[in-house]
Amino acid sequence: MTDAPAPAKELDAHPPAAGEAAEGGEAGPSKKALKKAEAKAKKEAEKARRAAEHEARQAAAKAAAGNTEDLAKDNYGDFTHLIKIDSERVKLKQLSDEHLGKTIKLRAWIQNVRMQGAKMAFVELREERDWAIQGVVAASPEGKPVSKQMVKWIGGLSLEGYVLVEAKVEKPLEPVKIKVSNYELHISKCFIISPGPQVLGMGLAVANRPVTNFDDEDAGGPVEEVKEGVDNLSLDNTPGASMATHLNNPVMHKRAPVQQAIADVRLAVRKLFAEYLEARDFVQFEAPCLIGAASEGGANVFGMPYFEKQAYLAQSPQFYKQYEIAGGRKRVLCIGPVFRAEKSNTPRHMTEFTGLDLEMEIEDHYHEVLHMLEGVLLHIFRGLEERCAEQIALVRTVYPSEPFLLPADGKEVRLTFAEGQALLRAEGPEEFRNVSDDEDMETATEKALETGSGEGARPFYALEDPENPKVTNAFDFFMRGQEILSGGQRVHSPEALEARIRKKGIDPASQGIKEYVDIFRSAGVPPHGGGGIGLDRVVAWYLNLPSVHLASYYPRTPKRLLP
Amino acid sequence: MTDAPAPAKELDAHPPAAGEAAEGGEAGPSKKALKKAEAKAKKEAEKARRAAEHEARQAAAKAAAGNTEDLAKDNYGDFTHLIKIDSERVKLKQLSDEHLGKTIKLRAWIQNVRMQGAKMAFVELREERDWAIQGVVAASPEGKPVSKQMVKWIGGLSLEGYVLVEAKVEKPLEPVKIKVSNYELHISKCFIISPGPQVLGMGLAVANRPVTNFDDEDAGGPVEEVKEGVDNLSLDNTPGASMATHLNNPVMHKRAPVQQAIADVRLAVRKLFAEYLEARDFVQFEAPCLIGAASEGGANVFGMPYFEKQAYLAQSPQFYKQYEIAGGRKRVLCIGPVFRAEKSNTPRHMTEFTGLDLEMEIEDHYHEVLHMLEGVLLHIFRGLEERCAEQIALVRTVYPSEPFLLPADGKEVRLTFAEGQALLRAEGPEEFRNVSDDEDMETATEKALETGSGEGARPFYALEDPENPKVTNAFDFFMRGQEILSGGQRVHSPEALEARIRKKGIDPASQGIKEYVDIFRSAGVPPHGGGGIGLDRVVAWYLNLPSVHLASYYPRTPKRLLP
Repeated sequence: MTDAPAPAKELDAHPPAAGEAAEGGEAGPSKKALKKAEAKAKKEAEKARRAAEHEARQAAAKAAAGNTEDLAKDNYGDFTHLIKIDSERVKLKQLSDEHLGKTIKLRAWIQNVRMQGAKMAFVELREERDWAIQGVVAASPEGKPVSKQMVKWIGGLSLEGYVLVEAKVEKPLEPVKIKVSNYELHISKCFIISPGPQVLGMGLAVANRPVTNFDDEDAGGPVEEVKEGVDNLSLDNTPGASMATHLNNPVMHKRAPVQQAIADVRLAVRKLFAEYLEARDFVQFEAPCLIGAASEGGANVFGMPYFEKQAYLAQSPQFYKQYEIAGGRKRVLCIGPVFRAEKSNTPRHMTEFTGLDLEMEIEDHYHEVLHMLEGVLLHIFRGLEERCAEQIALVRTVYPSEPFLLPADGKEVRLTFAEGQALLRAEGPEEFRNVSDDEDMETATEKALETGSGEGARPFYALEDPENPKVTNAFDFFMRGQEILSGGQRVHSPEALEARIRKKGIDPASQGIKEYVDIFRSAGVPPHGGGGIGLDRVVAWYLNLPSVHLASYYPRTPKRLLP
Repeated sequence: MTDAPAPAKELDAHPPAAGEAAEGGEAGPSKKALKKAEAKAKKEAEKARRAAEHEARQAAAKAAAGNTEDLAKDNYGDFTHLIKIDSERVKLKQLSDEHLGKTIKLRAWIQNVRMQGAKMAFVELREERDWAIQGVVAASPEGKPVSKQMVKWIGGLSLEGYVLVEAKVEKPLEPVKIKVSNYELHISKCFIISPGPQVLGMGLAVANRPVTNFDDEDAGGPVEEVKEGVDNLSLDNTPGASMATHLNNPVMHKRAPVQQAIADVRLAVRKLFAEYLEARDFVQFEAPCLIGAASEGGANVFGMPYFEKQAYLAQSPQFYKQYEIAGGRKRVLCIGPVFRAEKSNTPRHMTEFTGLDLEMEIEDHYHEVLHMLEGVLLHIFRGLEERCAEQIALVRTVYPSEPFLLPADGKEVRLTFAEGQALLRAEGPEEFRNVSDDEDMETATEKALETGSGEGARPFYALEDPENPKVTNAFDFFMRGQEILSGGQRVHSPEALEARIRKKGIDPASQGIKEYVDIFRSAGVPPHGGGGIGLDRVVAWYLNLPSVHLASYYPRTPKRLLP
């Protein structure tokens, strides 16, 4: 169908001349080599002479046929709804040898484009994430399906424009340095569906480099343009940009393969969390964001006028998880936004983030909660290794990290003694790196997990140890030395709850608190406990990202509400 | 292990006397019947005499052993952490004949309790939703494991308290009128884990009746107590309560089986939505709630102080779905809260609700979006019938409804001509009930789906039909005559978008709008479209509930922010 040229190698067109071949060599070339080079040069010169003759003939023929006529004019240009390409649509992920020689169609972004002389151009076509392929467009001797004008037009296309392409699948002479390295596309048609800008605010290569600094001072200011050459995705020597530049160029920030890989990991964490718990009879529910009282302490809460009242944004789904348990759901999970009006401009803080929360009835001991949380975290980390190996590897090319030390066997959800010790030594906070082999696992784990379970830091809903009211049945989980989870058993007796609230210096009759305590008065509530994981933090620390903002789709900070 | 009495029938204890049996009959009893009754009465009298003798002997024995001693005192009372019951834990759902005669343990709410004389009590034990079983506790002749004191104590337990029970599984004399009708539990131990209140704010029977009115005037006021007798779940003759009473008694509102069934249906809709789309390469993402500009029109938006700025709550994830497409995700879905500051106090409105949203690249025609939305809705409705049959039947006992007319065959996701017509006639808005058989399906569907697609009602991001700028490539879906979905193709060209914005009388340079248009300038964005479904409404209309507030976990209205 098409008249595409033979497979081409991108940098083949200008082989070094014979004279050049010897220059700069440490030792002089042998006579034999010189002779060989001379012969080669002669051959090349002859080739060039013939090509020139051929071109002259073509040019003459064209001039005779009318110089302005473009025989390929229907094969390129702006897309209109009248254009239809009937060739098979093949996703780059699915390309295989069976497609060799076949003509396919593809919708893709122009990741890179460069002219090779006047009659050939190379164009990198990216379908999604880092799935890109080399396209070649070469003028046909007959002027169609590809004309010189068409090649020139393609060579001049703006980066990150979206095109519809018809092309024949060929094997390149040698593998191309691009994700789809074993095939190339010989383009016969190309239409712009949606053009790229004349100058990109931030090129893909910059977007795919590590962010250079996280002082987001320019938030909401004018777009900061990062000038660069035509090279859109070369990882070498490209300087990175600031987080502000990234967030002021959200489309290019998101198109960077590293960001798409992070998004995939984030989604996998959500799924793994829910699927582990659902297999254990947890049901998902939705906690409200709008609440009538700044019930959890009152600090760091966003408030707003709400008709004749005042409304607040929930700082956690804590009360609502407990209402679900009181309301007869045995085990609940909840994935949703939570809000903190904290003026912390650090790479660890955001004003809106996603909580992965669970709450469950306790039958015999609060360790049931601890083991459930342990189990779900291990399921997440093991699941990521299995499902997101490609994405994790991609992220590591930009943000290097060591893999997590996890038990190799995928069957056991609980940590064994040895695995737990290894994990603690490798990943736990400093003070637990020397847990001796003499301590049994339970103790070691608890030591690590219950750090900071002292009275002072615990909220009023945390249940005191019935044998020692100085501590609570609560615990924290750490990851790469950072807290990612806190949980524990809650107070379910209204009298004990009221006492705890008074002890914290809060008036049990205050708005929000009274309604909360009344819940436990209104009917018998089973003992229960739970925990909450910060999704953004788990993703960021797991991938060893320098900022939790990189793990968020649209980070919200005191300085940043756009886009 | 236990000494439980033989299977008992709850209302067997006082058979009518022979004389009474004839009273009130329309025709007098036959001689034969009278004789039979006489014989029976004699037998009963003899039985009673023997029982009295036995009791007298027992009483004498007890008096001899010291009248105050309670031989069963360790088998009931308040639960402490020292109590441990080692019997097998069996869920009521899993009870089968293999458990007959075995002793099990159960944690349950006291749904109902009544004394039967001084030595026996019946107690309905509810494990979850409507999974309840009849428990029987009868004093043992030996005074243990069950004493008269223990029976009296159980007979006096408050409703909706949470107890730990040890009991033997037995067959009742005849099926009990309760969910688990073929087994009963002969109680040998009973401990209160969490006591019920002296008087319930709203009993379970009331909570499980249709809500009587939806004027939520009492929101946030004092708890309105609905007085009732001890009968906690009798569906007969119990008057319902107002929505305000329900929401002021959230625990009992939630414990009502009908509300738990609705919650199950709601969760199933969420899951069905996501699973259909994920099977078609959609990826989930999270749109922010906090946004920097009241970008979608500006009306009905909640605003709040945000450090030195002003923040708003997102009215839809529309812009962010489009940013994801621009950012290189081909198909996205998003399930999350959206907010409308609309002062509408109707059973159809809430200020916070959950959106099920999707957005996808369009390859050839915007009908790709329409068919996707059609497909996902059909998948949801078919899936509900399969997965939630029990819950739907339960809801219908309280809120009657006719099943939806859907294609019986579960394989085809698209509507056929005949099915579509039937669906339209049965469920579509009035004007489409007479679609003639002559019109082909596509036309008929579009007619129904594209109602109201005129220019006036469409937002600025809706794409105009390239052949007729008076209409847009947009559509609505209806369900039981109510709109549940709107969608269509979006404008992806920055020039066209700016023109549309001006046409709507909005300044393209205004905050939020400028950043939105800039997205489409910053790189080539593929043609795309999508739609949004209101989760609360789909659940409410599918189940034919009288208010969308019943489909929500914690409805938010202009008057209601608690609990």
